[in-house]
Formats: sequence, C-alpha cells, structure tokens
Amino acid sequence: MEKGQLLYEGKAKKIYATDDEHVVWVEYKDDATAFDGKKKGRIGGKGELNNRISGIFFNYLAEKGISTHYVKEISPTEQLVHRVTILPIEVVVRNIAAGSLAKRLGMEEGTALSHAVVETYYKDDALGDPLINDSHISVLELATPEQVRQMKEMALDVNEHLKQYLRARNVLLVDFKLEFGVTSSGELLLADEISPDTCRFWDADTKEKLDKDRFRRDMGNVREAYEEMLRRLGGPARV
Amino acid sequence: MEKGQLLYEGKAKKIYATDDEHVVWVEYKDDATAFDGKKKGRIGGKGELNNRISGIFFNYLAEKGISTHYVKEISPTEQLVHRVTILPIEVVVRNIAAGSLAKRLGMEEGTALSHAVVETYYKDDALGDPLINDSHISVLELATPEQVRQMKEMALDVNEHLKQYLRARNVLLVDFKLEFGVTSSGELLLADEISPDTCRFWDADTKEKLDKDRFRRDMGNVREAYEEMLRRLGGPARV
Repeated sequence: MEKGQLLYEGKAKKIYATDDEHVVWVEYKDDATAFDGKKKGRIGGKGELNNRISGIFFNYLAEKGISTHYVKEISPTEQLVHRVTILPIEVVVRNIAAGSLAKRLGMEEGTALSHAVVETYYKDDALGDPLINDSHISVLELATPEQVRQMKEMALDVNEHLKQYLRARNVLLVDFKLEFGVTSSGELLLADEISPDTCRFWDADTKEKLDKDRFRRDMGNVREAYEEMLRRLGGPARV
Repeated sequence: MEKGQLLYEGKAKKIYATDDEHVVWVEYKDDATAFDGKKKGRIGGKGELNNRISGIFFNYLAEKGISTHYVKEISPTEQLVHRVTILPIEVVVRNIAAGSLAKRLGMEEGTALSHAVVETYYKDDALGDPLINDSHISVLELATPEQVRQMKEMALDVNEHLKQYLRARNVLLVDFKLEFGVTSSGELLLADEISPDTCRFWDADTKEKLDKDRFRRDMGNVREAYEEMLRRLGGPARV
C-alpha cells in the first residue's frame, strides 16, 4: 500500500489517497482544537495515542458486528480506512449530562440520564455545528431518512458495546460523537475516530476527566489523561 | 359563566377560573415581549386584535376537524377555552426560512423550504426556549412519545389548513408556533393562541411583514399590521 496525495486536512487528521481507490491513509496529528476551532493548541503524543485508542475501539466494535471504516494500523500515528463520503452530521449519544446538554436542558453536569439521549448536529464550523432534528436533515438533504434511522440505531448499539467495555475498565462513558460515511457502493459505515477527542470518559470512582475536556477547560495533564485511557484499554502505558 | 380568580398571568394573556371547572376565561393583553422577555413593550389594541384573530383561526380549524381548546369569544379582549395543562413544548412549523431557522441553518430569510420543517422547543425562558428533539423530550419526561407524535401530526395538519386559508387572503404563512394542552380526561388539544404574536405572516405580493417581527425589529406600524391581518381574515378593519 502506497501513500498518495493529500486529499484532506482536518483539525486532527490528514487523509491521503493510496494505490487502492477504496482505501485511504489517515495520519493522526497532535493538533488540538475546541469551540469550533476558536481554541487551538497542541498535545504532544496525541496523534499516536488517538490512532491507537481509535484502532482498539474500532476493532472491538467490528467484533461486535458494527460496520466500520477501519482497516488496520500501519504506524504508531497512521491507519488505513475504507474510503467513504462523510455525511455532514455528527451523531452524539449521551448517558450522563455534561457539556452542551447540561447547558441546553439546565441540568447539573454529572446527572445520570434515565436513558441514552441521541442528538444530531450539522457539521458546519461557520454555523457553530448547530443541533438539528430529522426535519432539518431532510430539508437540507444531508442524509436520507433511512440513513438517519440507521445512524441512530448504530449509535445506540455502539453506546451499549462501549459502555460495557469501558465499565470493565472502570471508565464511565459520559457521551461521545460519531461520524458516518457512505462507500462508493452506498454502504453506511461508522467512520472518523473514537478517542478522548470525541468522547467524554470519566474515571468511574473519582469522576476524574480522561478526555479533551481537560484541554477545553485548561485543567492540565491532558496527555497524561489520554495515556491513562490507552493504558486502561490495554495498549502500551507510555508513548 | 362567571369570571373567578386569576390562575396565571403570562406575557400576553391572563387566565381566570370560571364557575365551570373545565373552562377558563382568557383575557388578551396589549403587552408585547420578545427575545425571551428581554424586549418589552405595548401595542395598543393588540389584546383585542389577537383575541379576534385567534378566535377566527380556532373556529376555522375546529371546522376542519382539529381538536382545539377554544370555546367562544365573550368580549372584544376575552374568550373562553377548555381548561388544559399546557405541555412545556413549543411546536414550530416552518414553510419559509426566517428567524432562528435562517440563522441556525445559514439560509437566507425568505428561502422556500422544500417541505414543512417541524421543530420542538423547551418552553423555559431561563434556558432561552432551546431547540430540543424527541430524545430530550423523553428524558425530561415533557410528554409521552404518543403525545409528541400526535402534536407533530396535528401541527402539520394545522399548517396545511392555515396555508390554504391564508393563501386565499394573499398572505404567506412563513412559520408559526403552537402549544398543546391535556384535559383532565387526558385529551390532547391545540391550545394557546394563533395570532401575529405567534406566526410570521407576509403579504404574498410585497412580502411585507404583518406580524410581531415588526415589533422585534423596530419596523414600526405594528398595530396597523395586526389590523391588516384581521381585515384580511374578514373581521372589522379597525378596533
């Protein structure tokens, strides 16, 4: 497999073509952003940590029958994934009130939700990634009703699998964001990444944050938190 | 029917008990507010205009088979309605992009939507009446899934009836907000009011605004716009 031209550079990853038109080469970066790019920084080692963590989660989900874009890790900071067109919708699942949900609904951060909440956001930095509903998705033609139904169903499945997996590692899955993509043959795959950049993880006992909120809120020990997550998932303790 | 004690005073209406426990007495006020109460004012004659306009719409919708709380007008500014517990959800239907939808989705005001958009908002001034989805409604226990389904279905029916009714009067129904209530026997009724306070009405030819946006945006001739709406609906031209 050869690394071809740069196709896209996002906030946390670069995507390159390969000699297989159905596969792209993903390079995880150490760059960190928050609040729709208004806060920028760098977390040394993050690219490697997230490449590893995301790979572990995607492998686990594939074992559980979830269709994902993940192919394999090819270096500490790089992985191969199936080429998809990303749908411009972020699907968020929440088990515990935090972040924008706590603010929107006036709930105290840490309040357990009686059941998982599923939200969809319009992936558009200029608009501030606004919350949208099925009716907005339909009128903007961001996805078909069937794709929306499938994404929500897959997101709830992913939630059940990850909650259980993380509970065994003494981690609470507070909430997480998923992105989905469509292959050239029309198959919907779970895509993007699953990492402390895209999830809220709390230590089950101390409620210590092990995710990007440490960067967003200037709490310090950001890299150490990501390392702790990788350690709990069974990867190498230090990078 | 006798007017009893004041049960509730809202931004635009006062609700009194009557000697019939299933009926309340509504008095429409001239007070006007916008932006979650941050902008306050008074539109002389508004109470009378909205009492009349809302009565006309509710009578028309009842003829079309919509279950509403409306009983009858009892004075120029007062009407009787069935007593309900209002669900803390605002159901908004939109045919043309304007206001918060235009802002949320980055669309130019006036863009026709390919189909009606239905939104739900959490009726909570302190939180700024945030947009919520079915999942939020469920976790907050604001309504049952069946009530949510019924409200959306009724809202779309109301939209079809009002669009047609207004088209014949050379008015575009841009968008509107509905509230629903539940009677003591559990019946879901269309409640609150339907007026230039709760709808966006544009003249079909000139696109002149005939609604509360004239107040929100300090455009002047607010009362005259409400009078024009009443005139087109066939009521007296001046109050």
